[in-house]
Amino acid sequence: MTRTAAVVGGGHTRWGKREATWKDLAQEAGKEAFDDVPGVGPSDIEGLFVGAVQPERFAFQSHVAPLVAELLGIDVDSMIARTELACASGQAALRYAWLAIAAGQLDTALVIGVEKMNLPDDHTEEMQSSMMNVVDREFDGVNGLNAPSYFSLIAQRHMHEYGTTKEQLAAVSAKNKTHAASNPYAQFQKEIDVDDVLESYPVAPPLNLFDCSGITDGAAALVLVSEEKARELTDTAAYITGSGQSCMASNSINNLPSLSAWPQATVAAEQAYEQAGIEDPVEALDVAEIHDCFSISEIVEYEDLGWVEKGEGGRFVEDGRSALDGDIAVNPRGGLLGCGHPLGATGISQALEIYRQFAGDVPDARQVPDGPETGLIHNLSGSASVHSVMTLARDPQ
Amino acid sequence: MTRTAAVVGGGHTRWGKREATWKDLAQEAGKEAFDDVPGVGPSDIEGLFVGAVQPERFAFQSHVAPLVAELLGIDVDSMIARTELACASGQAALRYAWLAIAAGQLDTALVIGVEKMNLPDDHTEEMQSSMMNVVDREFDGVNGLNAPSYFSLIAQRHMHEYGTTKEQLAAVSAKNKTHAASNPYAQFQKEIDVDDVLESYPVAPPLNLFDCSGITDGAAALVLVSEEKARELTDTAAYITGSGQSCMASNSINNLPSLSAWPQATVAAEQAYEQAGIEDPVEALDVAEIHDCFSISEIVEYEDLGWVEKGEGGRFVEDGRSALDGDIAVNPRGGLLGCGHPLGATGISQALEIYRQFAGDVPDARQVPDGPETGLIHNLSGSASVHSVMTLARDPQ
Repeated sequence: MTRTAAVVGGGHTRWGKREATWKDLAQEAGKEAFDDVPGVGPSDIEGLFVGAVQPERFAFQSHVAPLVAELLGIDVDSMIARTELACASGQAALRYAWLAIAAGQLDTALVIGVEKMNLPDDHTEEMQSSMMNVVDREFDGVNGLNAPSYFSLIAQRHMHEYGTTKEQLAAVSAKNKTHAASNPYAQFQKEIDVDDVLESYPVAPPLNLFDCSGITDGAAALVLVSEEKARELTDTAAYITGSGQSCMASNSINNLPSLSAWPQATVAAEQAYEQAGIEDPVEALDVAEIHDCFSISEIVEYEDLGWVEKGEGGRFVEDGRSALDGDIAVNPRGGLLGCGHPLGATGISQALEIYRQFAGDVPDARQVPDGPETGLIHNLSGSASVHSVMTLARDPQ
Repeated sequence: MTRTAAVVGGGHTRWGKREATWKDLAQEAGKEAFDDVPGVGPSDIEGLFVGAVQPERFAFQSHVAPLVAELLGIDVDSMIARTELACASGQAALRYAWLAIAAGQLDTALVIGVEKMNLPDDHTEEMQSSMMNVVDREFDGVNGLNAPSYFSLIAQRHMHEYGTTKEQLAAVSAKNKTHAASNPYAQFQKEIDVDDVLESYPVAPPLNLFDCSGITDGAAALVLVSEEKARELTDTAAYITGSGQSCMASNSINNLPSLSAWPQATVAAEQAYEQAGIEDPVEALDVAEIHDCFSISEIVEYEDLGWVEKGEGGRFVEDGRSALDGDIAVNPRGGLLGCGHPLGATGISQALEIYRQFAGDVPDARQVPDGPETGLIHNLSGSASVHSVMTLARDPQ
């Protein structure tokens, strides 16, 4: 890459079931981002990058990026668009902002992810039906393959092949939801333990309610600037050091080579590690926000992001290696399980957490100890056939 | 910019009312693109960039980019996402592909724009309602401000301020639809004259039916590669020389400073001209594909792209200065008026036309004479408060 970009601050709404429109949420996160970064205001923004999945269905509105510009009073004079890659839309938007800066097209960008998913009670069925849009409707959706049923198949297969246990799944949820208890922006702010997960009601066996992320309204925003500008503005920037993405030509479940392995996560991670100069990720990474849409996801990701041997993911959490004081602190923000998952906003929120962890700007209860300096974000989308990985560092490498 | 990218070929479906799904259309255009570029096949594609506006509403499907990868057998190992900027989505996707190449992230990309807009007869009302999503629904859509009524206001104001005539509007439509008669991909393939436009039935006065673009199903695809790779592959590449975009903080009609002028078109064009080293666009440009969603649009664009003084747009077409053998050959493809406007595909089709004009690979009846070597594409979106401009050249500058 020619030059890199850095997160220098951001904004975040409370996530959950909000009495607010998508516009309210985007505006709230964007305004907080401007408050968070002295020296950057609406008139400094050259590019506006919006991550959102289906405002067309949830709010009957397209062309959302210019409406965000209007809400925040930004005359955008270089780049504007909205990016959609289902559950990875936020990271995809951030990646385009980074590329625009890397290519020299602009120096200062605002990246906003937003999704308003909870509809009025009489539209709940429409919301649920719309969630089927992220899988292939014609082949998978029509057969009832929504997200919980699909990830239950993954969990069943992983348990069958590697002896992964329900207790190990529950350990992921207990860890992340407990982290979320100290995140004032999180949807679920209650400490729970493994037994609470095991005793929550079954959704799609072996996945119980607390193994599943929520239906969430929320937004998050980042100010992303060129590295030169970052050095002028702050000494706590989070520099993007690598970024990878991989999409299998097989998407529909009937074409997937495996249920228990996500080879695209490995490819995407290796791309990012190579750019970042990371040879041993467990050694190199201090903190990671990875896509725990369901508890099983985080276990598969430990393995396929190259942190442990295949099949050892369950033990990675059981042994505390992904705890705050473990080998890599995983999902200190609370993850999707604790924070909820407003689709377009998740990747942005993850990157903001990495920035705030570097800056020491989170409550003590979820601060990764010993001054974390390297981090990673990961998102999957669709039938987990697409993976996106980005690495960040407090000091550019 | 660090390095540029070039179009080296592409594919295009027949546009119109098609008995085909959006998947059929994307696959047809993508396969033709691979046939068009010897030496580039699915396994060479590192990035897939999809432009589409509302597959969520027209086909109840999101996460469309990975489905396109699957349809074309592409394992994408660097970048994949879909881009939405309403009627400018195609150009926005192309721009991201260019940035990814400029930043050094990849060398070979496929850019596909697609929209399936004609729904079964019993869903026509839903399609029409969905078209209101590209304006601000809460402020403008709810008051009935759909596209024809909005552009009729622009036409009325332009006629009032500058004396623009219905005959001048009709001259735009007659020119573009006559060009489309020699485009086998166009939705409307019939030569018409000014009287035909004036005699077509009124839609939103002063705009008659033939002053309006259609509701269109279609797709178009481009192979975009780094300049080094373009030189290896072909000697008829279309190199991207500049790109600009501008979005006013005012979007809703009640916030627009003017109906008859589009200052963002001027800003976006000046950005592109500066990057391309263009001082006098009329002198420099041989061919242009600009956003004639309605006949009045093309007239305002002549002015606000900096080609003539404000108010002189009507005379520009009347005097034949935008004809094939004029100062700038405008919309030789047939424009949106002749080809139709499948939202996400339009910008891609425009760029493909520039490439084919450079290569001399269009029917004689619409070939711009004397070997065109410089071109421009332009799109507007929403309430014409956002403008996107890209310049291309047969030889990089």
